[in-house]
Parts: sequence; C-alpha cells; structure tokens
Amino acid sequence: MAVGPLAKVVYHPIAGFRLGTTEAGMKVSGRKDLVVMEAQAGSSMAGVFTANAFCAAPVHLCRRHLLSDRPLALIVNTGNANAGTGLDGEADAQTSCHELAQALNLKSSQVLPFSTGVIGEKLPIGKIVTSLPKAINALDVNGWEDAALGILTTDTRPKGASVQFQHLGRSISLSGIAKGSGMIRPNMATMLAFVASDVKCTPTLAQDLLNQAVNQSFNRITVDGDMSTNDSCMLIATGASDLCLDEDTDLVALFSHALTELMQELAHAIVRDGEGATKFISIEVLGGASSEECLQVAYAIAHSPLIKTAMFASDPNWGRILAAVGYAGVPNLDVNSLTIHIGDCLLVEHGGCAQSYSEAAGQEIMNKDEINIRVDLKRGDTKETVWTTDLSYDYVKINADYRS
Amino acid sequence: MAVGPLAKVVYHPIAGFRLGTTEAGMKVSGRKDLVVMEAQAGSSMAGVFTANAFCAAPVHLCRRHLLSDRPLALIVNTGNANAGTGLDGEADAQTSCHELAQALNLKSSQVLPFSTGVIGEKLPIGKIVTSLPKAINALDVNGWEDAALGILTTDTRPKGASVQFQHLGRSISLSGIAKGSGMIRPNMATMLAFVASDVKCTPTLAQDLLNQAVNQSFNRITVDGDMSTNDSCMLIATGASDLCLDEDTDLVALFSHALTELMQELAHAIVRDGEGATKFISIEVLGGASSEECLQVAYAIAHSPLIKTAMFASDPNWGRILAAVGYAGVPNLDVNSLTIHIGDCLLVEHGGCAQSYSEAAGQEIMNKDEINIRVDLKRGDTKETVWTTDLSYDYVKINADYRS
Repeated sequence: MAVGPLAKVVYHPIAGFRLGTTEAGMKVSGRKDLVVMEAQAGSSMAGVFTANAFCAAPVHLCRRHLLSDRPLALIVNTGNANAGTGLDGEADAQTSCHELAQALNLKSSQVLPFSTGVIGEKLPIGKIVTSLPKAINALDVNGWEDAALGILTTDTRPKGASVQFQHLGRSISLSGIAKGSGMIRPNMATMLAFVASDVKCTPTLAQDLLNQAVNQSFNRITVDGDMSTNDSCMLIATGASDLCLDEDTDLVALFSHALTELMQELAHAIVRDGEGATKFISIEVLGGASSEECLQVAYAIAHSPLIKTAMFASDPNWGRILAAVGYAGVPNLDVNSLTIHIGDCLLVEHGGCAQSYSEAAGQEIMNKDEINIRVDLKRGDTKETVWTTDLSYDYVKINADYRS
Repeated sequence: MAVGPLAKVVYHPIAGFRLGTTEAGMKVSGRKDLVVMEAQAGSSMAGVFTANAFCAAPVHLCRRHLLSDRPLALIVNTGNANAGTGLDGEADAQTSCHELAQALNLKSSQVLPFSTGVIGEKLPIGKIVTSLPKAINALDVNGWEDAALGILTTDTRPKGASVQFQHLGRSISLSGIAKGSGMIRPNMATMLAFVASDVKCTPTLAQDLLNQAVNQSFNRITVDGDMSTNDSCMLIATGASDLCLDEDTDLVALFSHALTELMQELAHAIVRDGEGATKFISIEVLGGASSEECLQVAYAIAHSPLIKTAMFASDPNWGRILAAVGYAGVPNLDVNSLTIHIGDCLLVEHGGCAQSYSEAAGQEIMNKDEINIRVDLKRGDTKETVWTTDLSYDYVKINADYRS
C-alpha cells in the first residue's frame, strides 16, 4: 500500500549511461537484486552519503574512491546492507568493485559499491560474483525500469522520474531512480538514489549542485526519524550532450532547478511508499526567524507519534499539533501570535482553537490522503517544508516482522 | 496491559496533608475525576512544570501562585486538560481556585490547579464547582488510594509509592502518586505527580530537592517523545514531623535519596504503563565524555521507532541499535571501540556484531519483558540512564482512537 496512484514513468535514456539488472538470489527468489551501471569515459560523479557514524563498508569505499579517482561504474546489491560487518565487510565490498572493474576494464577505485537490506549479516559475495556477468550482459541505455525494480527492498513499488529541458536549441535529459521506505530521516534515509544526466560538468560543480538539490529533497523527508547506515545519493553527468554547465550560468540555473524538482519527486515517492503509510503529509513552516527554527518546528510535528497516529485515524487533533509546536524548542516563541492551518482551514490562533474552526471542516480535510499542515510563526521571512507520513498499524507490523 | 505485576501500595499517611476524591462526571461515568488536596498552615510547596511553550492555563496559574504566595491547597481534574483554551481557560482555572479557596478559607492564590485529559476543549467548570463540596467532604489523611485513581486518564492502573525512614530516632514519611502513560518525554511528560512528606523545609530548599529528583526520574523517561502542555510535579513538605531539613545536612542527604528513589519508582510505573507497552526498557549509556552525549545516545535509542518495534517483536535486531548510536550525533565517535550489550550479552564490538554473540543468547534476553540495553562509549566517566517502552500495535490503536 502506498499513498496516491503509481504513475508510469517514461525514462529518457541518458546518452553515455547504461544500466544492467539481474537476479543473484539475495532477496526472495524471482526478484531482481543486483544492478550495475556504467558511465562513459570522461563522466563526472558526485555523491552524498549518510552522516551515520556506523556507516556501512560500501559507504566507506564510495567516499574513498570518489576522493582518489574518477569512478565510472556502480554496483548495487539489495537484500544485505553489508553494514556492521567489520573487516570482512570491507573486503567483500572491495571484491565486488574488483570483479566489476576487471570485467569493464577499469581500476577497482573506479567502481562505487552500494548495498541495502538487513544490517549485520555477511554479504553473500559469492552470489554477487557469480551473477555479475549476467548483469553486465544486460547493460543498456534503456535499463532504467529494470534497475528501478532491482534496487528495492521493503518498497512496495518502484520509484523513478525523468525530465527533459531545452537550452540553446538542444535537449538535456535527467533520469533517476530511488529506493527507500523505512529508516527515513533528514540527512539521508535508508535510501539509495541514482540520477544521471547527459550534461557536461566538472565533478566539483556536480557535487555542489547535488548538495543543494539533496538539501531541498531527500534531506527534507522523514518517515520514522531513523537514519540508516547506507544512505547514498549519486549524480552522474556523462557529458554526452556537449552542453557544458561550467561555462554557462543560465544553464546551471535551469539544470539546478530541474535536478531539485526531479529529486523532490523521488523523495516524495519514498514518503508515499513509507512503511505502512496511508497519508502523504506536507509540513510547511513559514514566518521563521531562521531556517533552523522552521526545521525544528517542522520536525517536531513530523516526528510526533501522537500526531502521526492522529493522522492515521483522520482525526483533526489540533491539540497535538499545538503541543508539538510548543515543545519544538524555539526560544521566546509567542504562542499568541502564531497560526496553524490544515489545508485551507485555520486551526489555531490567539493561543488556542480558532473561533472560525469547525470540527466538520477539519474532518473533511483530514479524510483526504494528502494533507498540508502550515505553521506561520509570524516572526521572520524564512520558510521550510518537510514531508512525512502517518503512523499506522502496518508500520508496526512491517518493522516487527522484518527479520522473521 | 502494563509491564510487570501491580504491587499493592501501602501509603504512609502524611501528617498535615489530606486528600479528597470524587466523581464530577468529566470522565466516563462511574470513574473518579476530581481530587482536592489540603496541606496544613506553614507547609512548603515546590513545583516543576512542562517546558512546552503552549502550556495549559492551570500551569500558568500554578507558576504565578507559587511565586506570589504560599499555596496550601491543590485541585486536580481529569478528562479535560484546559489547554489551548485561551482566555476562557484562564478564567475557568481561576474559578476553580477561587471556589476551593472560599471553602477552605484561603486566598485564591493559595490554591494550585491541575488539569489533564483532552486538549482544546472548554473545561466543564460547572461540573467541577458542583462536585467540589463532595471532594472537600472526602478530605482524609488516608485519601491516597482514591486520589491515585482520581488522577488517571488513559492509564490502565494507579501509580503510587510510599516510604519511611528513620533519623535521630524519629520517622520521616514520603507518599506520592502519579499519572501518565502517553505523551511522555524528557522535561516532563503528560504526567502529574504529587509527593508529600511530613518533613519541615523552606520552599527554596524544597524546590532544589525537587529539581534534583525530577532530573533523575521523570526527566529520564520517554514513551513516545511527545511533551505535554500540562506536566506538573509537586512536592509538599508539611513540617508536621518537626524534623527540619534546613538545619541538618545529614537529613538532607537521606531525604534527597528517598525522594529520588520514590520519584524513580513513580516514573518507572509510568513507563510500565506506557500506552501499549509490552516491555520495560532501561537504556544505560556509560563511558561518556559528558552527560549531554550520554543522553543523546540514550534518547536516540529510546526514540527510534525501528528499535521500539523490534523490541515489541522480541527481535534482537542489534543492527538497528548500532544505527541509532551512529546517528545520535556524538562528535568523533569511535565506533570501533564502543561496546553494546543487551542484558549480559555482548552484541557489538570492533564496529560490528561481537564474535561471541549468538542469536539464541540474544533471543533469550529479548523474550523477557524487562530489557537492559547498555552502551559503553569508552571515552569518559559519565553515565546516564533513560527508561522507555516498546512500540506496539496497541500504541497506534490507543492513539488513533483516543478522541473517538
């Protein structure tokens, strides 16, 4: 179950970027679980990774390879996170890089490894090595749809987005896929995301643009407040289009906008498929004195189990929202001047329930599966938005049963 | 359902302190919901209140009355929190103080009001005023047991504790009651607690001792991370024993220890009765460089829905604990030196699953309903303990259904 209809994504192929997917038998049998990606020579890659101190072996290796070399290939397995696996885990991640590098005629340091799944079990490296030729054989510029399926774990549906825009009479394409539905919180989630474009760009600029886009997308979503050991988000610029970002500030603006929108679409898809989600909730905090305090309030609401269960029940329990705003920790908050809306309905003003509020109006909005909560702090010009889900029986069921 | 057996509390009566309880018809019919308490002339009172910016009308009034006068009476209603009720709420809280003051021949500012229940609905002040004489009529030094029932809301059982100790051949008694089972988090919970003693003590010293005890008890528990608008914890020292704290440092040490232990017992009772709780979880973080970082790690674990659902499933999912320690935000955390235990079982060392760990041993500990998680950061001498519950289907059910 996920919130909203599943739109069919038509992926624009990205010249200079191929994806190949196969079954290595790490997940439930019959499901794709091994993906390789290859970018043409000269491509730039940038990555943003989990801030978790216990980050997984592949994350360590990705960071190292990105610093020391210009990687051109990626290998992704699901079913096993290769996290909390100590030195064995490092060796296994290195083996997978080495094997793919050999097959593609690259150095090991030009391969980036990604793993997602159960934490703390040894990576089934034998299965990966055995199945690698099949995945390489499947490499194709039209491999996006299969790859979108191949990177999933507890997700109930694939997540992809693709966009094209024109500049100086020529097209730039961006395509991306993502996975993740639990352990989702700011500073990345149990999520993997891979976005490629045919734009030309230095690795340094690619990194800047990726940082900005992640900050307005994947770093603004939360399902359960848990941060994973494996979160990784990659941007690959193949340069096949010959349109070069580094020499064209107009193009940078257009590309940055397109990238942020595409990443928001992927981030929203993760929230919509949040474990047990029945609602898609946008929390907008405006009128703040700083971005920090807007986010404090937004996350206090987004992480409150009491608000999330009320949302699941379609209960316009404004008291719980008011309480969360009150404990968010904003200094000298004037509770009498701020306002809280759900949808178009004014819930809270003058420190209590709005005179104009009717339970019927609140109920009508809560019955929808997309809900907007808007808090106006009335003390500045800053605004931030965070996206989250409700907390349902199914969340508990999924996470209580996950390993059994 | 609550964790552990319900022990019958034998309350030591506190000389100079009487409690009276009745039914005012604010909760489900037939349940006690109005409590008054009266302390003898000369008693000292101290209070600790919610840090929520949206604090309820009675909390405002309590703070004011404690600053301006020496209160001698308390009035507590359940079923309605009188929070988010604006100016009407203030007026209603004042009316309840006024009515009790008149009956007991006190000034309004000598009465402290407390409310707990649904947020944002008008206080049924008429019912309170009508039933007040019955509650006053019931005032009795042996009124603890009824009062313990009268202050409950979604609690499944009463919470009380009582202790007596000897000093210079004489006895000092402490008795206390508490309520609360959801919206529980550090800096107080949706909880009310009232502890009285026959010790003699200035209001200033009472406040110091209360602050210290709260910090090691009610401020160290969390059920769902939500902080209420109404949390209040009171200490009343009647002085009837004539043993005076202010002149006897040995007595201060004895009393402080007894008070902290009694408040921990009440705080643990709240956790054991946490909404939907099936486990009582102690999280001990030692070897920290500061109290702050120990608490950061402890709360990251205590608030993780993934860990709480794994606990509900009795699943020794150490990967989730490791991930939470990793994202707690401790700077320069050395993941290779720290250790994590559940019970006597070493889970994590050298950055991964301990060699000696067996799933069977972990499972045996997780099957119990009292679980101890111990993280040794190995970087200092500081230690902190936090108590919490698991996250079950019933938590969602209780909170999704609360208002319907």
